[in-house]
Amino acid sequence: ARGAVDMTHGSGGKAMAQLVRELFAAAFANPWLDQGNDQAAFDVPGGRMVMTTDGFVVSPLFFPGGDIGSLAVHGTVNDVAMAGAVPLHLTAGFIIEEGFPLADLKRVVDSMAAAAREAGVAIVSGDTKVVERGKGDGIFITTTGIGMVPPGVAPSGDRARPGDAILVSGTMGDHGVAIMSTRDNLGFETAILSDSAALNGLVAAMVAAVPDVHVLRDPTRGGLATTLNEIAHQSGVGMRLRESDIPVRAQVTAACELLGLDPLYAANEGKLIAICAEEECDRLLSVMRDHPLGRDAACIGRVVEDPHRFVQMETRFGGRRIVDWLTGEQLPRIC
Amino acid sequence: ARGAVDMTHGSGGKAMAQLVRELFAAAFANPWLDQGNDQAAFDVPGGRMVMTTDGFVVSPLFFPGGDIGSLAVHGTVNDVAMAGAVPLHLTAGFIIEEGFPLADLKRVVDSMAAAAREAGVAIVSGDTKVVERGKGDGIFITTTGIGMVPPGVAPSGDRARPGDAILVSGTMGDHGVAIMSTRDNLGFETAILSDSAALNGLVAAMVAAVPDVHVLRDPTRGGLATTLNEIAHQSGVGMRLRESDIPVRAQVTAACELLGLDPLYAANEGKLIAICAEEECDRLLSVMRDHPLGRDAACIGRVVEDPHRFVQMETRFGGRRIVDWLTGEQLPRIC
Ligand SMILES: Nc1ncnc2c1ncn2[C@@H]1O[C@H](COP(=O)(O)OP(=O)(O)OP(=O)(O)O)[C@@H](O)[C@H]1O
Ligand SMILES: Nc1ncnc2c1ncn2[C@@H]1O[C@H](COP(=O)(O)OP(=O)(O)OP(=O)(O)O)[C@@H](O)[C@H]1O
Ligand SMILES: [Mg+2]
Ligand SMILES: [Mg+2]
Ligand SMILES: [Mg+2]
Ligand SMILES: [Mg+2]
Ligand SMILES: [Mg+2]
Ligand SMILES: [Mg+2]
Repeated sequence: ARGAVDMTHGSGGKAMAQLVRELFAAAFANPWLDQGNDQAAFDVPGGRMVMTTDGFVVSPLFFPGGDIGSLAVHGTVNDVAMAGAVPLHLTAGFIIEEGFPLADLKRVVDSMAAAAREAGVAIVSGDTKVVERGKGDGIFITTTGIGMVPPGVAPSGDRARPGDAILVSGTMGDHGVAIMSTRDNLGFETAILSDSAALNGLVAAMVAAVPDVHVLRDPTRGGLATTLNEIAHQSGVGMRLRESDIPVRAQVTAACELLGLDPLYAANEGKLIAICAEEECDRLLSVMRDHPLGRDAACIGRVVEDPHRFVQMETRFGGRRIVDWLTGEQLPRIC
Repeated sequence: ARGAVDMTHGSGGKAMAQLVRELFAAAFANPWLDQGNDQAAFDVPGGRMVMTTDGFVVSPLFFPGGDIGSLAVHGTVNDVAMAGAVPLHLTAGFIIEEGFPLADLKRVVDSMAAAAREAGVAIVSGDTKVVERGKGDGIFITTTGIGMVPPGVAPSGDRARPGDAILVSGTMGDHGVAIMSTRDNLGFETAILSDSAALNGLVAAMVAAVPDVHVLRDPTRGGLATTLNEIAHQSGVGMRLRESDIPVRAQVTAACELLGLDPLYAANEGKLIAICAEEECDRLLSVMRDHPLGRDAACIGRVVEDPHRFVQMETRFGGRRIVDWLTGEQLPRIC
């Protein structure tokens, strides 16, 4: 391996996927990691368990609608939930920079505790490391979660089939824009709050109604566009989206226009993508809309046969464009 | 909370224990975290499971006898094993500083993969974040592990009883001195290698012979002295050690003298403390000595009644001294 790690390797886009595939997954290769999902699923004596981890390095630590603590709980709870699983326990590892105010640490920890309580999970084990001033950035948190998958439930990124319906649980891009709004050099402020939320309750309702949901995934780094491309790639299918059906807040659209960004690539931290058989779409959609975190749920397109695995979109103006993976870096340190 | 985090909060000593107790454990309070062991143990449908996490920020990344990658696997495998458990799966979260050479990343990842293979565990899920130059320090790795506890096995830090024997699996302080030897400003070099190793094989042999071992714990940050104080505190007992029975390499003793340090406070990453009923001591010791990682195992003292929970030691010269917790910081970023 030549060269060095750059910011695109952490963007959630194409460069990161390549690094993970060629370096990490190649070295660690095993049947569970190779599933390529948001979490690994495996059999334990009493059923099917999942396990997943995420590091959080969001900057700033406190942002409209949340902070690194609540985000670190929501993010990992959601990756557990995206298996259709019921989250059980979390662990939390803290890497703290010398000089970090204890008052801020307390705010973060209290926020984590509240988020865990609300999601119904316990933080059962932790670790504390301190690095010298200038060797970290306030605080980094890595959370790991485990959960149990109900029998008969088995969503996976490789199960999208031509004809399937593609749904999202709400508006796209809120978290990304909320973070952007805090970055002073971007010179604007919006009233947009991060959508950061634990989706396990919504997922429980969804899998109770439609146990055979084919795919569940949360469109975090890289946004809806990148996550759909990952699924298309994993399942060996194409997708056709209808731009006019994708829910995006007017303020998010406006902020993205100002910045020359696309809301379809902006991160979400409390939204999910669901893919199910066409005939289950209406039932799933109505269950989602009945849940507070799915009120703006919508069916945004369908899965098609396509050897090129392209995600294409009918634009608002009747055209058609290819919605590619995120390349390069949209916004560093979004989560 | 007033003030700021300082290096002692990550030392493994008294300041860290206080921060964990008063801030983290107070906020997260739940029956599993409150066990206060190296890992949380809980019942799952098919048996008893444990879960544990550790962040690794060791500096330098490559040291005599190991590197951050192998250490991140050994450390978490060992905290699983200290429940008497069989490690099952690991996750690994990477926080990488922009500019980190891909060649070094590959070395670290290959070393992790080899360590995991050797320990018989799989790295089933991972995460990759990148922070800007100057906001990290090369690479930080957080690993989380789960494992299954065999029926009838239940070591815990609160199970030391007066009369019990205290054993260690080998020489004390090797890892700490190996790291010290690389720090240029300390101006010396030794031939001491880190003892970094996965102890799950040794533990499997031990619990097969003595299922009712009372306590297992690896004396990492803070060393033997601090870890014994933790156990004494948890169990509400005192301890009497015999200095002449504690195995320490001559080179480690010499290096520590040079630096004004005490090998009993230096970190270990491939050693364990076991506490068992007096009548099981010989059997346990002989099983340990039969294992490659327990060849220098020794019985170093016994548990006594003591309302003060003091760890005391008969010195080589016939005196007696109190072996207190680590206070302050011996060596930063040892793991
Ligand atoms: N930030 C934290 N939040 C919650 N619990 C914590 C935190 N840090 C440590 N703990 C808990 O405190 C106890 C001791 O943790 P510690 O990290 O010292 O143990 P260890 O991992 O065995 O040692 P080392 O980290 O040196 O390998 C464990 O029960 C752990 O879960
Ligand atoms: N450093 C790594 N080592 C091994 N596997 C990795 C690593 N980084 C990511 N992965 C794997 O790549 C897949 C995608 O990871 P990714 O972090 O993008 O998913 P996610 O957690 O759902 O998204 P996000 O991190 O944005 O929340 C997962 O299967 C994950 O286990
Ligand atoms: Mg995800
Ligand atoms: Mg995630
Ligand atoms: Mg620890
Ligand atoms: Mg330990
Ligand atoms: Mg540990
Ligand atoms: Mg991730």
